[in-house]
Parts: sequence; structure tokens; C-alpha cells
Amino acid sequence: MKARVTVSLKRTVLDPQGQTIRSALVSRGYGQIEDVRQDKVFEIRLAEGTDAAAAKKQLEEVARDILANPVIEDYRVELEG
Amino acid sequence: MKARVTVSLKRTVLDPQGQTIRSALVSRGYGQIEDVRQDKVFEIRLAEGTDAAAAKKQLEEVARDILANPVIEDYRVELEG
Repeated sequence: MKARVTVSLKRTVLDPQGQTIRSALVSRGYGQIEDVRQDKVFEIRLAEGTDAAAAKKQLEEVARDILANPVIEDYRVELEG
Repeated sequence: MKARVTVSLKRTVLDPQGQTIRSALVSRGYGQIEDVRQDKVFEIRLAEGTDAAAAKKQLEEVARDILANPVIEDYRVELEG
């Protein structure tokens, strides 16, 4: 079973890395790019036969406690079956 | 218009960061996690009225030339309308 955990900065938090990338793109002529924000995605492979509901619950735990910082980041867990 | 560019290491390239995360998760009791790979995702907002076909072409260019290293990374451009 595969899963994907996406961790992104909350909308209210500044993303200096994204802003730097945006400036670089604009200075290279891509002026129609108004905003860039960089997220992290973890592509996770789980052992065969893992129960989907249990996996989802565990990955929510992993995302909240380990992969993301819930003070400044949002996370999203998706199972890919 | 919004777009998303996903940059991931090619399958044949080792991902030490992902392996470190996987080891950390296994040592915390998540033994069913067999593999972790970390991707980068760029959430891009384009100026209103940008032509979708032109935007897609430009973002392919941006992904190939600037955001990804095509020697070791794959990229995927998705428009979100």
C-alpha cells in the first residue's frame, strides 16, 4: 500500500524560500508567476496487508507528531491503495 | 490560475533523507513503513488570464531548467485551473 503525506506551511506563515524562488523566476522573465510556496511530500510505502483504516490513523499520527510542526504547518494524508 | 510542480528523485537514485526518516519512524514503532521518499512540491499562482496552454509550456520549461535537476530528478507539472 502506498500513501502520501503533504506538509505545507500554513497560509498565514511567510515562506521566504518560496519568495526567493518567485523572485528568481520573475527576474528570468516569468513575470506572470505571482506566488510560489514550497511544500514537502513524503511518498510512503507500507507493508502489504496493512489495514487501510489503521494505516490512515497511524499516518495521521506520524504526520502530526513527526513529519510536520502543527504550529506553523498543515498536513494532509492520502492513501493510494 | 494555480499550478503544481512536483520534483522527485528518480527511482534509481538513492534518497538518504527518506531513508533516515524511515529509520526514525521504524525505531518509533512504525515497523510497517517499508520505504519513504521525500519530494518537493512548488505551489505556483499565475496571473489571472494567463493562457493555460502557454502556462503549461512555460512551467515545463521552469521545471526542467530551474526547479529540477533532470540528471537525477523527475518532474511533473499539473494545472489546477
